[in-house]
Amino acid sequence: MDLNALRTANPDHWAKASAIRALTLDAVAAANSGHSGMPMGMADVATVLFEKHMKFDVANPQWPDRDRFILSAGHGSMLIYSLLHLMGDAQVTLDQVKNFRQMGQLTAGHPENFLLDAVETTTGPLGQGIANAVGFAMAEEIQRAQYGRKIVDHNTYVIAGDGCLMEGISQEAMGLAGRHSLGKLIVFWDNNNITIDGTVDLSDRTNQVMRFKASGWHVQEIDGHDPQAIDAAITAAKKTKKPSMIACKTHIALGHAAQDTSKGHGALTDANQLAAAKAAYGWDHGPFEIPADVKSQWEAIGSRGAAEREAWEARFAETSQGKQDRFTRAYALEAPKKLASVVRALKKQVSEDQPKVATRKASEMALAAINPVMPETVGGSADLTGSNNTKTDDLGVFDLDNRKGRYVYWGIREHGMAAAMNGMALHGGIRPYSGTFFCFTDYARPSMRLAALSKIPTVFVMTHDSIGVGEDGPTHQPVEHLAICRATPNTYVFRTADAVETAEAWEIALSSKDTPSVMALTRQNLPTVRTEHKMANLTAKGAYVLAEADAKREVILIATGSEVSLAMEAKAQLEAEGIGTRVVSMPCMELFAQQDEAYRRKVLPAGPVRIGIEAAVRDGGWDRWLLGERGRDSKADFVGMASFGASAPAGELFEKFGITAAATVAKAKALLG
Amino acid sequence: MDLNALRTANPDHWAKASAIRALTLDAVAAANSGHSGMPMGMADVATVLFEKHMKFDVANPQWPDRDRFILSAGHGSMLIYSLLHLMGDAQVTLDQVKNFRQMGQLTAGHPENFLLDAVETTTGPLGQGIANAVGFAMAEEIQRAQYGRKIVDHNTYVIAGDGCLMEGISQEAMGLAGRHSLGKLIVFWDNNNITIDGTVDLSDRTNQVMRFKASGWHVQEIDGHDPQAIDAAITAAKKTKKPSMIACKTHIALGHAAQDTSKGHGALTDANQLAAAKAAYGWDHGPFEIPADVKSQWEAIGSRGAAEREAWEARFAETSQGKQDRFTRAYALEAPKKLASVVRALKKQVSEDQPKVATRKASEMALAAINPVMPETVGGSADLTGSNNTKTDDLGVFDLDNRKGRYVYWGIREHGMAAAMNGMALHGGIRPYSGTFFCFTDYARPSMRLAALSKIPTVFVMTHDSIGVGEDGPTHQPVEHLAICRATPNTYVFRTADAVETAEAWEIALSSKDTPSVMALTRQNLPTVRTEHKMANLTAKGAYVLAEADAKREVILIATGSEVSLAMEAKAQLEAEGIGTRVVSMPCMELFAQQDEAYRRKVLPAGPVRIGIEAAVRDGGWDRWLLGERGRDSKADFVGMASFGASAPAGELFEKFGITAAATVAKAKALLG
Repeated sequence: MDLNALRTANPDHWAKASAIRALTLDAVAAANSGHSGMPMGMADVATVLFEKHMKFDVANPQWPDRDRFILSAGHGSMLIYSLLHLMGDAQVTLDQVKNFRQMGQLTAGHPENFLLDAVETTTGPLGQGIANAVGFAMAEEIQRAQYGRKIVDHNTYVIAGDGCLMEGISQEAMGLAGRHSLGKLIVFWDNNNITIDGTVDLSDRTNQVMRFKASGWHVQEIDGHDPQAIDAAITAAKKTKKPSMIACKTHIALGHAAQDTSKGHGALTDANQLAAAKAAYGWDHGPFEIPADVKSQWEAIGSRGAAEREAWEARFAETSQGKQDRFTRAYALEAPKKLASVVRALKKQVSEDQPKVATRKASEMALAAINPVMPETVGGSADLTGSNNTKTDDLGVFDLDNRKGRYVYWGIREHGMAAAMNGMALHGGIRPYSGTFFCFTDYARPSMRLAALSKIPTVFVMTHDSIGVGEDGPTHQPVEHLAICRATPNTYVFRTADAVETAEAWEIALSSKDTPSVMALTRQNLPTVRTEHKMANLTAKGAYVLAEADAKREVILIATGSEVSLAMEAKAQLEAEGIGTRVVSMPCMELFAQQDEAYRRKVLPAGPVRIGIEAAVRDGGWDRWLLGERGRDSKADFVGMASFGASAPAGELFEKFGITAAATVAKAKALLG
Repeated sequence: MDLNALRTANPDHWAKASAIRALTLDAVAAANSGHSGMPMGMADVATVLFEKHMKFDVANPQWPDRDRFILSAGHGSMLIYSLLHLMGDAQVTLDQVKNFRQMGQLTAGHPENFLLDAVETTTGPLGQGIANAVGFAMAEEIQRAQYGRKIVDHNTYVIAGDGCLMEGISQEAMGLAGRHSLGKLIVFWDNNNITIDGTVDLSDRTNQVMRFKASGWHVQEIDGHDPQAIDAAITAAKKTKKPSMIACKTHIALGHAAQDTSKGHGALTDANQLAAAKAAYGWDHGPFEIPADVKSQWEAIGSRGAAEREAWEARFAETSQGKQDRFTRAYALEAPKKLASVVRALKKQVSEDQPKVATRKASEMALAAINPVMPETVGGSADLTGSNNTKTDDLGVFDLDNRKGRYVYWGIREHGMAAAMNGMALHGGIRPYSGTFFCFTDYARPSMRLAALSKIPTVFVMTHDSIGVGEDGPTHQPVEHLAICRATPNTYVFRTADAVETAEAWEIALSSKDTPSVMALTRQNLPTVRTEHKMANLTAKGAYVLAEADAKREVILIATGSEVSLAMEAKAQLEAEGIGTRVVSMPCMELFAQQDEAYRRKVLPAGPVRIGIEAAVRDGGWDRWLLGERGRDSKADFVGMASFGASAPAGELFEKFGITAAATVAKAKALLG
């Protein structure tokens, strides 16, 4: 590359972009860790985007109608930190930049939404950002339809690398964006032809332009170092009604000895090479030094959106009070007051009617009560609508001719669905929930982890939660998935026993502000076990005494979900033999763990033998409750799965794998000696 | 559809295809469960494929040079069972077909490779089959190059549905197949325009033809009910050097009242509609009744390949004895005798040299010793070759001009990589291992589960196994992934402490016949803890006493991987205070669980307090060993992670999260009172 020519052609632009490159080089060198090449390659695109197009006010990075900027290639985090520091973001001080990737800093190795207000979503695991962005853009469409253009009207911009596009999730995201003509989604592909292992064609020769077109996208190809071309492409992308991909031919680590090589992908720390690169830019400033004129130009860019924000605030103030309240409440993730009352009404009705329904059906009953009073919910399913029971009558279907529709047919795309749900929630104003089979938690897993890590209250509706699946066999029967979800920090895993607990779980999930929820729901019908109406949400305690021992308490049966009614059967049999048996229902281990020790001791006193019952592996967090938190509490055993399942009718499978009242009774008696 | 016209045009073909449709309808109706429509829609394609093209001998379904047939749309399992029964497969008797989806039968809800010899791979979770197939086709290419066309020369055929193509993994598979011009891979797309939720365009409007072309595939579009068109397309597909996709326009549930509807996807059980469909086919036979002439035509198809098989056997017998032995040994998954000796030699050298290396580097040392004596290994990485240390000098790179290459640059495609590795192993003759970061187990998870479920000894090399990752931060730091892998039945999870244990783990992983292995390896350097050479593979015991207490034994420290050396430090500190401390290294919980109780008791006697140390969540199977298998063994505590990690240098993170010798000592002393 002839850097001189670039500099001479657009000196102001060049200085601003050079500031990003210089800060990146300095910060990575100071940390002796990080990724220099990507921010250096995409500095021109980012500069033009923020200077000419982004609706952004650095003093108010969470203003609701801002444009969103998502760095899907999250390893290039110094691009965001440089931009924010240069524009004058209050959090990203020079000290933060100097302490890139150090303990306790906001400038983490990858951009974390929970550390910096201006970071829209945590990225790093490749492909997540572009799929999050689909959710951002859908949330914008839905709310634009709901509130009108005066309140909601913004773009979602993404920078994605070759890695993002090679990950399968990118295809799921592209398919969704194309299907729904998400015209305000604009993706820059950092087409630098380099991955860690070498040039891209070592592993991929896909024609990305053709591939995006096949999915219904508007595609442009530009020189990613030409500011006029970048500007023109963004202008065109904003006009088209299709989602846009701008293929930006760039040079990774532009101007550095490692330019256009896989070495350029990593941390460029050699002092001489660093100096040579800066010299090539015509950048004769010390480490972390930004000349005042460049800084002030960047700060002007940062505050460029203030007027637009103020105009928006004026428009918002003119909106009806009802709309304002609803909008503000949803953005603050405050549940409406009516949530508690509709849930209580449903609980009362169910405890009286005592239906025998699957918890997936119970979930639908809860949603039917909640969705009308909670307009921020958006539901969906990965092509299992009739099985996941996620669609209620009032939602309407999100489609080209019904942007207000609150139900999404995600297609057979569990991973893209989960990531897009995260994006919807992060966008603000929407509470997404969607379903698939619990076994296919596996497909959604990378995004479920990110929901937990980045504190997004997404609700994953996971039906068909055990061998109760029956004939579909072991590929469709979760046995380890409760363990997987429970092992993940900051995740509520609800496995509810009946329609009452299911309604309670929904109330908690839809009130959560920073913890995702997994609803593990049955395919098969279950009796109502909560036959006495209680105002209090007992599920919020995580576990509670469902039935006290009649005779002297010798046994505690702890069960979840479909096995709670089985525990009640086992209790009846034990009591018939004079063995006093308490039944504890434990719909959410995480919430039980959050209770104080006195409550936990009250529910699980030392002494009686304990049997855990769950049609899943014991590793799913059971031993803490069975054996006592520091050991020595009790003798204990477990009735559950120790292998994969099999294909047969569900009832026969519970017999085959010994998950029965009889097996429970036998194990309890064996422990009692 | 005018079924009369179809029947009249090709009466013999029609009768054979009708037999598939009738058996499918009868079996699903008998089970009152299953998927009728897909086999009914693809019966014509399957009939032509087996009649005219498949190199297949029903009497020898595992003959190594057979063509492979993979039903990626595994819910259509009755297609396979019908074909196999009609051709006279010894396992799929009429009784099996009548007992479709029932307890203990081979005709499970989805096709299971471990139940039926003729089922190449377990399918059901969508998209897996097509990605497995990429591995099958790569295995064929590699072995064709190694053994010559006379021994290895066959096609891999796949039937994939809309669901398979919507799953992101399909793009990863397509990209790999296109990049490597896997010309013997032929995919039929069952283009029936129906998913469970409705017509495909409800969720997807991708131009699949254009998308496949963008990935370098040869594409044809045909009427999937026209036998001549099907035959011609397969003939053309076999000739091209590119991977082939044949888009077959079909009618789901052809001839049934549910034809072309999403209802047709499921179980069609209405007796009247079933009778009407059979009448429309001109099929006037009772349930499960196949007229003798149709059956005999199908049986002729089943034995059509016998002569080819015999010719192959003759050619194989003429091959050099060395090649025969190597081929046969690899197909039988027998490790070469030299494996044990090279591992022992490496262990001896390492225990003498006592290098301070990361276990990822130790893994490379083991592979460098093993790969030259085990020509069936094929390694790779998802674009992290230099980080995963999976490439050894002698492998060569698999590429268009080096089909013998045993190293695959998978690209940023963890999921496709894992599925293709499973396919390679299932093909036979290859032992695949490949790497990514342990955190990205998440991306590969659906295929890792299938490796375990379908008993495939794939080796997943997962480096950067804890907060030891350091600056990359929480998105890249596994904390729950050991728990995830350990909760999965039939999976060896190795977390090794040094180069000796790492070599031992590789010996076990590469000797396994039906259990996959996860190698959790460090980024950071570790001291050698096995400083005394032992011939025996101690890792094979799962856990063992690494260092006995000097003073009276009051404490047992149990640790894995990078925390074993930390346990040794803690022991030194405790012993200095007169507290006798045993250190148990536990590189593989699953293998320890397989030891007899006497051995387990010897390693973990009741009495001393126990501290588990692992830079991961306690839920990962720890409580069983800490608290005792039935409780009451010991007082216990755990030093590990209870949250996600953070971005900072690794050493500081271990301090921050309290995973230190000092914390271990403090917890032990607290328990001792």
